Amino acid sequence: MDLVCERNKLNSAVNNAQKAVSERSTLPILEGILLKTDNNTLTLTGNNTELAIRCRIESDVKEQGSVVVSSKIFSDIVKRLPDNRVHIEYKKDHNNIVTLRSGNSKFDILGIDPIDFPDIPKIISDNFITISAKKFNNMIKKTIFAVAQDETKPVFTGELLSIDNDEIRLVALDGFRLAIRNDKMDRNYGTNKVIIPGKNLSEISKILSDIDGDITIIFDDKSVQINTEEITIVSRLLSGNFINYEKIIPTEYKTRVIADTREFQDSIERASVILRDEKSNTVKLNINNNRIEITSSSEHGSVYEEMAANVEGLDIEIGFNSKYLIEILRAIDDESICMEFTNNVGPCIIKPIDGNSYIYFILPVKLAR
Amino acid sequence: MDLVCERNKLNSAVNNAQKAVSERSTLPILEGILLKTDNNTLTLTGNNTELAIRCRIESDVKEQGSVVVSSKIFSDIVKRLPDNRVHIEYKKDHNNIVTLRSGNSKFDILGIDPIDFPDIPKIISDNFITISAKKFNNMIKKTIFAVAQDETKPVFTGELLSIDNDEIRLVALDGFRLAIRNDKMDRNYGTNKVIIPGKNLSEISKILSDIDGDITIIFDDKSVQINTEEITIVSRLLSGNFINYEKIIPTEYKTRVIADTREFQDSIERASVILRDEKSNTVKLNINNNRIEITSSSEHGSVYEEMAANVEGLDIEIGFNSKYLIEILRAIDDESICMEFTNNVGPCIIKPIDGNSYIYFILPVKLAR
Repeated sequence: MDLVCERNKLNSAVNNAQKAVSERSTLPILEGILLKTDNNTLTLTGNNTELAIRCRIESDVKEQGSVVVSSKIFSDIVKRLPDNRVHIEYKKDHNNIVTLRSGNSKFDILGIDPIDFPDIPKIISDNFITISAKKFNNMIKKTIFAVAQDETKPVFTGELLSIDNDEIRLVALDGFRLAIRNDKMDRNYGTNKVIIPGKNLSEISKILSDIDGDITIIFDDKSVQINTEEITIVSRLLSGNFINYEKIIPTEYKTRVIADTREFQDSIERASVILRDEKSNTVKLNINNNRIEITSSSEHGSVYEEMAANVEGLDIEIGFNSKYLIEILRAIDDESICMEFTNNVGPCIIKPIDGNSYIYFILPVKLAR
Repeated sequence: MDLVCERNKLNSAVNNAQKAVSERSTLPILEGILLKTDNNTLTLTGNNTELAIRCRIESDVKEQGSVVVSSKIFSDIVKRLPDNRVHIEYKKDHNNIVTLRSGNSKFDILGIDPIDFPDIPKIISDNFITISAKKFNNMIKKTIFAVAQDETKPVFTGELLSIDNDEIRLVALDGFRLAIRNDKMDRNYGTNKVIIPGKNLSEISKILSDIDGDITIIFDDKSVQINTEEITIVSRLLSGNFINYEKIIPTEYKTRVIADTREFQDSIERASVILRDEKSNTVKLNINNNRIEITSSSEHGSVYEEMAANVEGLDIEIGFNSKYLIEILRAIDDESICMEFTNNVGPCIIKPIDGNSYIYFILPVKLAR
């Protein structure tokens, strides 16, 4: 392999491919990035067998070839290269050494034979959608916090991606809260449901942050593939059935509150200041007379907050895990929110005043008497 | 105690006082901040018995008093207060509760009787200097990295502050390198030498970053006191004799190199990329023919760097701990540096091309053959 490419493009490709590289693996090759030429393109691939990311950059290739290099060492070198012109050379018979040259610097690092580098699953399917990268990333960022962290029900460590004609929906739930984001696409794409692992979506989200324009998402039974102009991402899917979450969302309410989102969030955050351990993490809402009283207490003291709100229906006193409530409020950009309650043992639904771009659902905690 | 003050001033005073509060102490009162009124001033004091910081803010005091509050809880509350107007109230008979009110928020937190809060040492002395805060802070920041981290020789966990008429000097050394910064003051202040604990200087440096104008530094045998307009900092001194470091600085050299500081630093940093553990941390310099060759090697590979430099005297091949060398180079703002070598087992001296604002000294490491 013998090629010349640009440091800045190489650096951004390494940073992206690295997101699918194992931090620590019993197989050293999984801690590596595969460099491979394809005519005048250099591809960089990270693949931890759950998630694979392949990035393409233009390159002036004198001699085709492929080699795996340590992801950590290679990325540390690339980001410090003194000149934007980088020369990469690898000859198998030369002690497996990969040589990088840039400016007056020369780096010799160990190359690994790519023969054992895992293949990326090939997706052959007619099921696909096209959506703006920003839109899809926004849906991930505003639901991902509700993905289950423990593995007792593996299916809830993923998010349900549901396609229904021109509607796209992401759903995450962890047994205490539920996060749903809806958006529209430009045309109908039939129906489809897949479950994508949450930790892969987190990495995908970081990559999409830098992407303008559209992405294509292709599905088969086992995998989902996301294509941008220069990057191909393949994630395995989770098997199993997602819960019928729509059934658990109440359609009626006894109390309905319209409140300023930031004012409510700030109040809950202030009330949480004295809640410093898992055991005492409850904020209490007392809703009456067009007013929300927010109180909390712990061994460290107590907090009383009060804010105006538009309240319709019955008075209610209800407690929530403050961390869960704050995470939901942080995911909402709207100036005002609508909260619906049935009673103080049933869920609270948080949704927009107009439209259905999101639904959040949070279970209350029992109040100490 | 009953007073009204401004949140923003209170917040910055809490942040400063907090730097002298124990993170974890067997005495809960040392994890607290002392609030104390003095006519129309509120003082906030943190005191871990090694370092004390007292901050004064204007306050509308209705009833004088004092109380200690948990530093963590109090600072978390203050930074989130909704309104710039803060009302603080404490009545001993009211279950020792301190009440903060701001906007529609009310916080009740536990107050601790201030009777056991440690006194700040009083310094009665005619020994003092006046110097710009920025200047003194710059001297700290550019020497503090060379303070010894291990406690085997306690005196080297501090920095020597030496006053000689209108000259001020800070010295840190850890057995592998030595860092000296010199500056001038506006007038003569006699002579004085004290050793200030490095970890206290780190906290002092953070406070001085926000201070414009001059500070006064007062010394006695046991303590040093730094006064700004609104803050009083008292640090205990380390006892013992600092090494006669001037004796170990060579006055002659066999090789003298003038090099571009950033280019040299970048080369050393690149050569360090493959040096990933304590055992193999050596960069080798090969100085000859108006050129510095920088090489390194480890199990991860090898690096070769080369840069032009102005070399006078004998050729030399010498090795250094890359981390130590990088820390020194990062502390130098000058465009070019002068390096002097005697031989490859003697120290390297790094100093400015003109003047004596700094002297750094680094011992070489033996090169493997």
